[in-house]
Amino acid sequence: MATESTLTRLFEPRSIALIGASDRSNWSHRIVDGLRVIGYEGDVHYVNPKGGEAHGRSLFRSAADIPEAPDLAFVMVPAKAVLDAMRDVARAGITSAIVLSSGFAELGDEGRRAQQELQSLAAEHGITVLGPNALGYVNTDAKVALKPFPPGEPLRSGSIGVVSQSGNVTVQLLNMARSFDIGVSLAVSTGNEMDVRIADVVDFLVDHEPTRVITIFTEAFPEPHAFLAACRRAREAGKLVVCLKAGRSEAAARAALAHTGSLVGNDAVIDAFLRSAGVVRVSSLEELLVVADTFAHTGPIDGAMALLTISGGTCDIVADAAEDIGLELAELTGETVTELKQVLPELAAAQNPLDVTGAAVTDATLMARALAVVARDPGVGIVLVAQEMDHQAENLAWGREALEQLSTEASAAECPAILANTTVRYVNERVREIRAAAGAPAVFGGVSRILPAIAAITEWTARDMSPGADDVRVQTGAVTAPREGTWSEATSRALLESAGVPVVPATVAASPSAAEEAAAAWGGPIALKVVSDDIVHKSDIGGVALDIATADVEEAATALLERVRTAAPDASVEGVLVTPMREPGVDLLVGVVREAEWGQVLAVGLGGVWAEVFGDVQRIALPASPAQFETALRRLRAWPLLDGVRGTEPVDITALVEVLGRVAALATSLGDELAAVEINPLRARGTQIEALDAAVVWNG
Amino acid sequence: MATESTLTRLFEPRSIALIGASDRSNWSHRIVDGLRVIGYEGDVHYVNPKGGEAHGRSLFRSAADIPEAPDLAFVMVPAKAVLDAMRDVARAGITSAIVLSSGFAELGDEGRRAQQELQSLAAEHGITVLGPNALGYVNTDAKVALKPFPPGEPLRSGSIGVVSQSGNVTVQLLNMARSFDIGVSLAVSTGNEMDVRIADVVDFLVDHEPTRVITIFTEAFPEPHAFLAACRRAREAGKLVVCLKAGRSEAAARAALAHTGSLVGNDAVIDAFLRSAGVVRVSSLEELLVVADTFAHTGPIDGAMALLTISGGTCDIVADAAEDIGLELAELTGETVTELKQVLPELAAAQNPLDVTGAAVTDATLMARALAVVARDPGVGIVLVAQEMDHQAENLAWGREALEQLSTEASAAECPAILANTTVRYVNERVREIRAAAGAPAVFGGVSRILPAIAAITEWTARDMSPGADDVRVQTGAVTAPREGTWSEATSRALLESAGVPVVPATVAASPSAAEEAAAAWGGPIALKVVSDDIVHKSDIGGVALDIATADVEEAATALLERVRTAAPDASVEGVLVTPMREPGVDLLVGVVREAEWGQVLAVGLGGVWAEVFGDVQRIALPASPAQFETALRRLRAWPLLDGVRGTEPVDITALVEVLGRVAALATSLGDELAAVEINPLRARGTQIEALDAAVVWNG
Repeated sequence: MATESTLTRLFEPRSIALIGASDRSNWSHRIVDGLRVIGYEGDVHYVNPKGGEAHGRSLFRSAADIPEAPDLAFVMVPAKAVLDAMRDVARAGITSAIVLSSGFAELGDEGRRAQQELQSLAAEHGITVLGPNALGYVNTDAKVALKPFPPGEPLRSGSIGVVSQSGNVTVQLLNMARSFDIGVSLAVSTGNEMDVRIADVVDFLVDHEPTRVITIFTEAFPEPHAFLAACRRAREAGKLVVCLKAGRSEAAARAALAHTGSLVGNDAVIDAFLRSAGVVRVSSLEELLVVADTFAHTGPIDGAMALLTISGGTCDIVADAAEDIGLELAELTGETVTELKQVLPELAAAQNPLDVTGAAVTDATLMARALAVVARDPGVGIVLVAQEMDHQAENLAWGREALEQLSTEASAAECPAILANTTVRYVNERVREIRAAAGAPAVFGGVSRILPAIAAITEWTARDMSPGADDVRVQTGAVTAPREGTWSEATSRALLESAGVPVVPATVAASPSAAEEAAAAWGGPIALKVVSDDIVHKSDIGGVALDIATADVEEAATALLERVRTAAPDASVEGVLVTPMREPGVDLLVGVVREAEWGQVLAVGLGGVWAEVFGDVQRIALPASPAQFETALRRLRAWPLLDGVRGTEPVDITALVEVLGRVAALATSLGDELAAVEINPLRARGTQIEALDAAVVWNG
Repeated sequence: MATESTLTRLFEPRSIALIGASDRSNWSHRIVDGLRVIGYEGDVHYVNPKGGEAHGRSLFRSAADIPEAPDLAFVMVPAKAVLDAMRDVARAGITSAIVLSSGFAELGDEGRRAQQELQSLAAEHGITVLGPNALGYVNTDAKVALKPFPPGEPLRSGSIGVVSQSGNVTVQLLNMARSFDIGVSLAVSTGNEMDVRIADVVDFLVDHEPTRVITIFTEAFPEPHAFLAACRRAREAGKLVVCLKAGRSEAAARAALAHTGSLVGNDAVIDAFLRSAGVVRVSSLEELLVVADTFAHTGPIDGAMALLTISGGTCDIVADAAEDIGLELAELTGETVTELKQVLPELAAAQNPLDVTGAAVTDATLMARALAVVARDPGVGIVLVAQEMDHQAENLAWGREALEQLSTEASAAECPAILANTTVRYVNERVREIRAAAGAPAVFGGVSRILPAIAAITEWTARDMSPGADDVRVQTGAVTAPREGTWSEATSRALLESAGVPVVPATVAASPSAAEEAAAAWGGPIALKVVSDDIVHKSDIGGVALDIATADVEEAATALLERVRTAAPDASVEGVLVTPMREPGVDLLVGVVREAEWGQVLAVGLGGVWAEVFGDVQRIALPASPAQFETALRRLRAWPLLDGVRGTEPVDITALVEVLGRVAALATSLGDELAAVEINPLRARGTQIEALDAAVVWNG
């Protein structure tokens, strides 16, 4: 079982038993090499039932023969030998193990049975297991590497934690990190997650001092609540969680089924929940590492960006990219501009993005002095210096001096400041040394990757998380109809009304003449809809009539009922719902659905054909705060319609958010019984916000 | 003047004069170093009016003293000395020059005057000039480097041409190319483009045998027609042009004005014209190079993609990314699946994306054999093998063998096949050697960059270019009103009708009673609009009345005219336009505008508030073919509305394309006189497509 203390033993062992050590095994050589290269200082014991020697050391035939029980067993025997090896581990009193061996649940039914046996054995003896089918881990802080793959040379130690279900992706991430000189704290491949899950490792990293940012690759979240809870803890600890969840597309879902048998959830729902837990989601391994690398240097970013460069072309490229991704470029204050003019050459324009001009090539302090001025501007939350640091730093004397000046100013600056090559670039050993000596906050990836990272971190910093996201409950007992199937519009309306959701007035009329009588009470044009639990798509069979003058209501209701009788002779019809027509407004679709294991999500978007055609829907995991609902509304592409485009009357957003909150409270109060509630449309016109149609669907 | 022969002399000189050579000049050292490193084999002459020695050679005091006139002069003297130096160049009979010196048009008015003098001098003596303020070029094919910047080591020669206005961006691109082992043919920094423009260099590269793909960075297109013509020539020659045009955003436009004084055109229009000339537009320097690098290996891509990897995680990431960017993954045929099953290990699923499984780690031929099978599938147009090629190839014996096998199969494959690291990665010298020895079609950037490149090349390959894009002309003389200002709806309607554009029937009634008489001829609900050349926004002053019953038309027209008289007492009113109301349909906005120097562009999008809110507008440069109009319609997010979403009647697309063609023909026939024509809305309902309102604006 994974607890903090068992995971500490797993990831920071004082002694290790290598089960299956052999000079003839490639795995064995790689593990031993990895421990040597990283400089592991604990005791390593070599175990193989065949006895003899390996790696120049004599082998224990049984782990139980090791004089003192090691903290951790690394099991690298064939799948068939794993159970015996684990029994030996148990006899030795070892309570943490990594099972590298594959041939378990990833192979289908037979493998699943073998894994269940392994699980029972581990549980019986209280052994915490990483794996099976796990490629191990690298802990640069505790100097432990237990992983059968390159890189052979040590990774730079740093503050980025890596957790990946997939072993191959772990290798990709570490190779990329090594290639671009990115510091990693602890990188773990979780494999089949029989015992230690991604959630457990995230939880461990929240308390892991060297780790400042946690990167995750996964294809599925088998226990989403544990995962979300760990991510919320990270958020509270000020640690950023960045996640690449693969398997959104149909083709990916197919590949994942073939690959791991993981369940691939409804992606939009997962997205809403990850967001609600403060997780930044990305869609490539490069983004995963660049966001992490950037945050490792910046921490939270509270304010707009300023860019410094010696290239006018780069200014333009960055300005375009910032606009494309909605990253705000700081407007410099008059004071900053005045100060900048004193620093810059005469021909430079004191503005943001800032081209300090080629004068920086002969004046190694120019860029650093400009950085100091810009970082003092109150509107600037982050300074990005696009400063070449490869061949120029290698070849030109000013490169080293400029880098040192910049690094000094960056560390003294009043907001985070980072340095980056304009484009992605390899950094050679000499530049690495120069950068390390200068303590340069150098970030990998080039501006085209770093700008989205800055945007994501800025949004994460500003994101409304906990306040107000209370789980509000309302009384739901007013409507006593049996909670099963799909409720009729009339019953659904009643439930919404009971929860304080404004609904357009309506009467269920048992006869055409009663309908006309009801209509007369409102005057104006009238809408008629058939009331029947048996009919879902009312308009498809002529069960809806719109824009009827009051005097024509009886006739129209008669015709409507006749159409319905003809089209659906077996349907049980209660009568006709009579409602006044409303003036046109913005028609929204509002619904709450439940995604198994994750929970409820409220979706809001432009109603009618528009949500379908433009896919303009926002989803918010429940419970959510009013600020979260408002943020979602503002993220709709259709937001200008609510905000009063072209001088039309704006919708009362506070009132709209209040209505969304009531729908949400109703849904959370109903809990598991509720399958879905949908209002389509919710008409918003100035301060008048009303459900014009609704449906409630039960799980029963 | 730039012609093919003068550019050949400029870019492939048999001898060079370095004007301003000096041991005390950094520029001078870098130029001499560059020539030495690339292995320039022609004669180099050193010129400095001060005489003496430099770089271990004696200096000519005048270029005219050089025994035989060199092909090219490289001028690297201070701005003030440039005119004298160029007079000396002219005396020497040299007819090609590169002016490195800055201090000309980029510095404002004074600099512009100096540049004009330089231009007159060059023109007078028939000297072709690259620059001033140009960082020179590298020609890896002819082995000439004339550029005062690192990299000092030779670039790999290859098939990518680079043309950049900005010197700094040229440096970025070449450093990135060197960092990632990308082959370049000719890279040119054009600087102030006083004489040799980007268009001239593109034109040269079209005929430059080693160049297969042309990359461009620019902030402006000073002479768009020359540029577009060169791009069209490239397209006809089967060479891909990739362009990063910076300066789209407001902030960038500001930076560019400060930087180069270039005019930043209307970006959406530029986009349409680049598209029409077959140019692939990108938005980062990385994309510029990755698209080029990919095309350099693939050429045109005709079909869907297949992916091969040893990682299930990569399969999922690629499937997701492909879906996001609309890149089609090939559905493998039954035959391919059968063949694959014979090649793959038992547990592998024979599908696309294809995880050949970790068995490839021990079987170096597995991936290559799978590649051979997949490349034969008739639906596959490109095979991407995500195969690690850095540390694994370095450390593992199978790495080299696998790479050789893959390279052999890729070169024999029936469609292009490329190899890439899954993520962006540095490739060290040993791997470079192994790759080069194997002839590996290795592409830079990682799958997250390469997939969009494949999508862009696939779209470029399929794009309808020339056929049918005839410049159709129509008679435009039927309406004789003076061509000035903004025409009234009635006059505009008449012009559209004369060009064969269907327009809803209408009558201009001089009096309310005449209006009712006209309405009676159609029956049904009627729309009334005031007719006046003085009123642009009719509805704002009550000048429009909709949905009027025939019997009420006289009364409504009277009230309308009264409202207009009150609101606009000075307007000259001709009468009332009477038209029948039409059934609802899809309302489109169709307009043609002219962007100075570029030409006319037809814009089409969803009408009303939608184009504004969702920005869902497509623009097509004129003249355009019916296929181009149809492609534009299909690229609208609103396309499902035209295609018949949710079982509604689809719009007759052939008829709609025909109408767009007639609007376009009218606009091109009217030519420069026309400022804009706009139809809003063009109502499309099944086969009935009609302009309901229109305006024509003249330049006069």
